Amino acid sequence: MDRVVPGLLLAGFWLLLLFKGSALLFSVVILAVIFMAANEYLRMAAAGLIGKKERYFLNLVLMFPALAVTINSTQQYLAPALLASFFVLTGYFLYRYAKFEQPYAFFARLLFGVFYIGFLSSYLLLVRALPDGNYWLIVASAITAGADSGGYFVGCSIGKHKLCPNVSPKKTIEGALGGLVFALIAAFVGAHFLLPEVSPWFLALGTVVLTAAGVAGDLTESIIKRGTGTKDSGTCLGGHGGILDRIDSLLFALPVLYTVLTF
Amino acid sequence: MDRVVPGLLLAGFWLLLLFKGSALLFSVVILAVIFMAANEYLRMAAAGLIGKKERYFLNLVLMFPALAVTINSTQQYLAPALLASFFVLTGYFLYRYAKFEQPYAFFARLLFGVFYIGFLSSYLLLVRALPDGNYWLIVASAITAGADSGGYFVGCSIGKHKLCPNVSPKKTIEGALGGLVFALIAAFVGAHFLLPEVSPWFLALGTVVLTAAGVAGDLTESIIKRGTGTKDSGTCLGGHGGILDRIDSLLFALPVLYTVLTF
Repeated sequence: MDRVVPGLLLAGFWLLLLFKGSALLFSVVILAVIFMAANEYLRMAAAGLIGKKERYFLNLVLMFPALAVTINSTQQYLAPALLASFFVLTGYFLYRYAKFEQPYAFFARLLFGVFYIGFLSSYLLLVRALPDGNYWLIVASAITAGADSGGYFVGCSIGKHKLCPNVSPKKTIEGALGGLVFALIAAFVGAHFLLPEVSPWFLALGTVVLTAAGVAGDLTESIIKRGTGTKDSGTCLGGHGGILDRIDSLLFALPVLYTVLTF
Repeated sequence: MDRVVPGLLLAGFWLLLLFKGSALLFSVVILAVIFMAANEYLRMAAAGLIGKKERYFLNLVLMFPALAVTINSTQQYLAPALLASFFVLTGYFLYRYAKFEQPYAFFARLLFGVFYIGFLSSYLLLVRALPDGNYWLIVASAITAGADSGGYFVGCSIGKHKLCPNVSPKKTIEGALGGLVFALIAAFVGAHFLLPEVSPWFLALGTVVLTAAGVAGDLTESIIKRGTGTKDSGTCLGGHGGILDRIDSLLFALPVLYTVLTF
């Protein structure tokens, strides 16, 4: 039960923000979420290596791509922002070189974070800035939430064949397929009300792709956790673990959605 | 002497390519150079972890940003290409998970390579596509070559104070300042003939920034070499080490130049 109540509260807040919130409020909330996600990532990737002040500094550098999208709601400044992250991190490592035993390994982990947090999360803001972007975000969230919960319930009840046992031992093929069915239902119900002009074929194909991207995002977070010896990325959401545990699927699904919708 | 002759040959080939070569020939040569640079990087970063076939595959994935710029000579497709690199690498690691002892660490090294080789090198093509891009490339090469050789000769003759002893023990502050003087001479001579309309202040400031970026690029390559226990990145250019040893300064200087010229 400790999953259900905070889950419903989060979903309610998310819907309220997307239906009634302004673009500005959305940006503020999302930047706060990205800040927390980057902080969780750095707690894993930089555990024991840096102090609090330095973590906040690096957190900011990881967020450059998201900040660039806040200034200009297109992909235009993304490449310069990624360059800026890379160059500032380079300067940081040249300056701090003597302090770290393995600067290259730590440098690489931080660049992973620039990709994983800063770059992917900026698509939350990019999708919101599209026409009907708030509706697309609701449908995409419904898809990943449907895939997550469907995967959980079906996997727990009839799951037998492991999907990717070395990465995430609990995931089963039955769960993934159950998740896809739930995701399709969520997508068609959501789009029926919010995006009635979208063709059912596009929706069905899109749901398969977003569900697969979401599973990949979920597994990638498992790789990071195992690589850094962490269990939950954070504890701020009770039974839901950390912010990253909540958004890991969306982080992968939204860049795909945005690229498909704008290409 | 084994540095001078191949150095002159390379410089002659580079000038011929930029003055007389078509944009298409330039792209073909640069893609070949990037392929070799990516290969050198992977030899360092993936030493002992993967076979030859897998290295070629990963080499291609690292080159996505450069390939995107070959298709469209603006930054427009850079963000989608970086996403594609990230997602293909994710799929690769999920598929190969059981094979690697530390998939997250290796994953991070490859993403470093996407930034360091694929992303930065694509600015070689982007600068070439600007108006007078070939002239800008010649002036930028003259600046980094001036800084490199000036740094080498001045550093060897009167260098005393170490610049960054833990990263690169041979570099001295005297060498860096000598390099800057040589770079300024190279910049003003080059621009006098090729880009006479550029203001001297822009040129002087730009030379300082490009020289600094070049030194940072040089030191970053040292960090990678030390982190992977490599001496020279390759041996294909005789006394000049590998391709990466030759282009490490330009890799950092050109993105800065492009961003300044287009922002």
